Order: sequence, then C-alpha cells, then structure tokens
Amino acid sequence: MLQCDLPHNENDAVLLAHGGGGRLSHQLVEKIIKPHFKNSYLNDSHDGCSLPLNLIHNLAFSTDSYVIKPLYFPGGSIAELAVYGTVNDLAMCGAEPQFLSCSFILEEGFSLKTLEDLCQRMGRAAQECGVQIVTGDTKVVEKGQGDEIFINTAGIGQLLSRRKICRSQIQNGDAIILSGDLGRHSLAIMAQRQGLELQSKFTSDLAPLHRTTNSLLKSGLNINCLRDLTRGGLASALFELQDERCLGMTLEKNKIPVHEEVQSLCEIMGYDPMNLSNEGCFLMFVPSSDQEETLAHLHHLNHRDAAIIGHVHCRNSYISIKNELDVETLVDWPLGDPMPRIC
Amino acid sequence: MLQCDLPHNENDAVLLAHGGGGRLSHQLVEKIIKPHFKNSYLNDSHDGCSLPLNLIHNLAFSTDSYVIKPLYFPGGSIAELAVYGTVNDLAMCGAEPQFLSCSFILEEGFSLKTLEDLCQRMGRAAQECGVQIVTGDTKVVEKGQGDEIFINTAGIGQLLSRRKICRSQIQNGDAIILSGDLGRHSLAIMAQRQGLELQSKFTSDLAPLHRTTNSLLKSGLNINCLRDLTRGGLASALFELQDERCLGMTLEKNKIPVHEEVQSLCEIMGYDPMNLSNEGCFLMFVPSSDQEETLAHLHHLNHRDAAIIGHVHCRNSYISIKNELDVETLVDWPLGDPMPRIC
Repeated sequence: MLQCDLPHNENDAVLLAHGGGGRLSHQLVEKIIKPHFKNSYLNDSHDGCSLPLNLIHNLAFSTDSYVIKPLYFPGGSIAELAVYGTVNDLAMCGAEPQFLSCSFILEEGFSLKTLEDLCQRMGRAAQECGVQIVTGDTKVVEKGQGDEIFINTAGIGQLLSRRKICRSQIQNGDAIILSGDLGRHSLAIMAQRQGLELQSKFTSDLAPLHRTTNSLLKSGLNINCLRDLTRGGLASALFELQDERCLGMTLEKNKIPVHEEVQSLCEIMGYDPMNLSNEGCFLMFVPSSDQEETLAHLHHLNHRDAAIIGHVHCRNSYISIKNELDVETLVDWPLGDPMPRIC
Repeated sequence: MLQCDLPHNENDAVLLAHGGGGRLSHQLVEKIIKPHFKNSYLNDSHDGCSLPLNLIHNLAFSTDSYVIKPLYFPGGSIAELAVYGTVNDLAMCGAEPQFLSCSFILEEGFSLKTLEDLCQRMGRAAQECGVQIVTGDTKVVEKGQGDEIFINTAGIGQLLSRRKICRSQIQNGDAIILSGDLGRHSLAIMAQRQGLELQSKFTSDLAPLHRTTNSLLKSGLNINCLRDLTRGGLASALFELQDERCLGMTLEKNKIPVHEEVQSLCEIMGYDPMNLSNEGCFLMFVPSSDQEETLAHLHHLNHRDAAIIGHVHCRNSYISIKNELDVETLVDWPLGDPMPRIC
C-alpha cells in the first residue's frame, strides 16, 4: 500500500475526517483502538465478525450506551463502565459473558491521547472479565454536537442453565437479597462533579458481577431473578420487576446495607440511598428455603455487606418498607435518577 | 402499581429525567419505544434477553452507531438506516440477520413525537427484514451535548455456510463485481442539507441487502468476499480489503455504474463517485470462472446496474483504474468522506 501514515502526536485531536471512513478512519482504528482490543476476530478488518459458539443453552444479548460525565471518576472511568456494565447485564440474564462490540461516538476535537487511554482501559477490563471485544464502529460528530465521547457496547454470552431467570419467575414468599451496600457510585460521581472536599471519601462500587452470579448459578441454588441496581437504584428496580401479577414486596429498612458516610451525605443532600445508582451490586430473588444458603454463599464470595432485605408476598400489590419501629410506608417510584448522566 | 401516568401530548419533549432510570424512563420505553418493536423477547422488561438459537454454523456479530444529519432524507431516515445498516453488515459476513439491539442517545428537548415516528419506522424496517429488535437502552444528555438523536444497533445472525467470507479469501484473478450504481446516498443527503432545487432528483439507495446475499450464497456460487460501500465509498473499501498479501486490483472506469445525474453533479461539485457513500450496494469478489453466472444472478435479482468492474491480480500491489483509452492511474485513498455524518 502506497499510503504513508499521517503524523500523530500527543496533543492531536479527533477530526471530523476521522469519522469519514477513509484513510484517517482506518489509521484511528488500526493505531489507537485495535491494538488494545487485540484478538484474532478483529484481524478481518470488517464491519462484523464471525464467532464460534457451541451453544448448549440459549444465548443472552444485551446493549448499553454510556454517556457518564465526568469520564474519569474515583473507582474507574467510562471505559471500565462500558465493559463491566454490559458484562453485568449479561450476568443478570444468568449468562457467561463472552463477546462484546464497541462503538464510539466522538466529538470533533476530543483528545486522541484520552481516546487511547480509554481504549487501553477497555482492553484491560475486557481481559479481566474474560470477554473479547470483537467488532466495533467509530463515528465523529461536529464540535458542540456531542460531548467528548459516548461509548456503546453490546454483549453476547451463553446462558448457564435452561431455567429462565427473569421477573416472571419471582414467586410469592421469595426472599429479596441485596449483594452489597447502596449509593457509592452516585455519590462518587456527584462529589467529583462538584469538586467537594469529601471526594476522596467516595469510590464508585463499579465492578464486574459475572463471577459471583456464575458461582451462585453453578452451586445449584434456586435463583428466580437477578437485577443489578444501576440508574434509578433499588427503588426503580423493584417497580420494574413487578409484572401483571402485581405481587407485593416489603423491605426492612434496617437490613438495607448503606455505609455510614453515604447515609450522612444523603441526609445532608436530601437523597434517599434507595434511589441512588450503583455499578457493583445486584438483587436476587430466591425461594425463602434457600435464602440462608444463598446469603452464606455471597458472604463466602466476599460480598460482606450482602443481606436479606425483604420478601415478596401476595397480601397486597404494594412496594413498602418497614422502619425500625415496624411502621410500614409505601416506596415511591422516583421520576428519574437524582443525577443525570450517571452511567 | 399505584403510579399513574404522566400526561403525554404531541408537543412534549425529551426531559433529562427520561434518562434517569425511574418512572419517566419506564414510561418512555413502555409507551413510545416498545409498542413498535413488539416481540415476546421484550416482555421480560430487562436489560438483556435470552435468545433461542440452533446454530448450525458460526454466529455473526456486528454493530454501528448512526449519527446521520438530517434525520429524514429522500429515501429514508436514520431509523431505516439503523436497521438496514446493521442488517447489511451481517449480510456482508455471509449471515442471515436475526436479532438486533437498539440503543438511543437522546438530546434533552428532542420531540417525543419524532422519537415515536422513528421507533415506528424502525419496527417496520425490522419486520420487512425479518429481524427482531430484542433488547435496548435509552440515555438522555443535556441540551447542547448531543444532536437530537443518535442510534446504535448491534446485530447477530447465523452464517449460511462453513466457508469463511472475508478479505483473506480474496484470490489472485478474482472478479470484482459491483451490485449497483454509486453515489446516490451521499448526493441525496447533500442536496437535502443544502436545500438544493435538485433535491427531488436524488434518492438514497438505502436498502437491505441480505435477501440478495442469501440468495447468492444459497445458489452455490463461490463467493470469496462481500463488502458494502458505505462511508468512504468504493475507493476506501478497496484499500481496506487489501491485507498483508498486498494483491493489486485494477478497475475499468467505464464499467463502474454511475447514473448520469450523479455524474453531472459530481463534475460540478468536484466529487469523485468512487469516494461517495452508498447504503444499498456492495462489492463481491468471486473466482473469474464464476463471474458471468454471478452477474446473471444479480441481474435476475433485479440489481440491473450490477457489473464486473475489475479484477484482482498479483502484477503489483496497487489499486488502479483504467480509463476509456486504457490509461491506468492509481486510485487515491481519500482521507475521509467528503461529507461528514453521512450515516
């Protein structure tokens, strides 16, 4: 090939032409993106890839776009979020995540150095999760028509059992188990945005969850439903899990794990930890006969804050919470997350 | 569920809270998006889905983000593009497209009515292609941090044969066959953007291609490589198809189908049709022994402009083009598409 490379130095920025499908697009992908996602599926330089899969059970398929602001925060960046987030969505289906796609929407002027750092982080995060980023796309929009970088990942994985894990499996009497404490992701982002001094106090709980869910599923425990508590937090997740059967759910406030500094800041700011977003904890619905064993398994897997926070019932169709004095109040479905662009 | 719906009328716009994962997010998905993507996989209201697949051959996986401007253009909209574009990427792998994901990044203030229209168009386009939109995501960014709507789709499909279809299969002597005429997509977008009078003259060639590729593959013809000619057009595609073997390719200018009005406008504007983007035509590389039969098959499938435009050789490693007088010049790899945000 006769074409020589354009020089690329550390202050270079994304140009509109990087999104034009020509030589610059090619260089961006070959030099800045692909080296960090290294795997043989990417060698064909194509807009798609072919994957060998020996399906025993069904396939899980999921997607998320990530628009979090700021790009870097205590505990991670948009890059790890884009990998773990989709890995976790697959895990919540009861699947072993295997392959990811990755699509960037870049704003003209975005730093190539930052892009490269984010690609490196995505590559590392994928490796850590045992998944491969096998296909992708890059678009560029004019300055002022985007915001630095948006990342979409889609993921596929194999379900670990024939048994469906979804909200229609939730049964009257099920224990509601929470795998970890609430609110750290939201507060880490908020502290970072506002430059609060307490910034160092809060670290996002961002983490991949598939090793935990795989271990639980392989242990033979009966798991009816799994759900991670991202945007909208615990409260929204519970409402979304109600289907046309309208089973009731009652939580016990003093069982819900919330770290002390999170609780204090929530009181000052007027937030309810139940509405805050998390990136490393999830809900499980299991028959009450299995609840203690499931909890012990979670503790054994180092989810030290895991707790049985309530039960499903058919007394009424409300989602309610009991305080320390056994006074029961209704949980409200928040209109939206108290913070925009949290993931 | 106790929550009542918020009223929604025709002038309503996307709010930041629609992206917050709470009640408003739920309503947006349930009332505006899902009704148009109707299929049983969406019933679980989850961030992922499980798909029954009986894989005979490998799986194809692809993704694209769509940022085209304007959203509506002669011949389609971002909605059809987001469906056909990913369907076509799967078709170019030699796969039967089956399932799509759909992720929206909405700008605060975007019209809900337009969103609903685009969802309806996506639903219709998916139905027309025989694919199902089975999982998705919606994010909202602040006004001025996005541009109305960006759509990402990822797709999976089953490969139709065990034989790999990719650039490394291209062989010395292969015929290069183009399925249709060049440039109409780019010029339709340009005319629309600039409000040119000739707007009505140009309609994008946007179309799904999988029925054609499936028919060709099932006919038993030897197909070494398939590539659609989107961003960057024919010229960029040829350069991207060169691998480390650096086979040469020589085209014949008078064989390349370009409609007369496209050619005229290109001459006025200084564009080369080879660099313009298309959304409904593709390249095939086939052994020269199969070239006539392949061409006849394409004509039979109503690709009336299909033509053998050149051959692969090992005389040198250049991509060149011969004019009517048999004078050969090198093709240049454009830096980027002459028009940004063309797809």
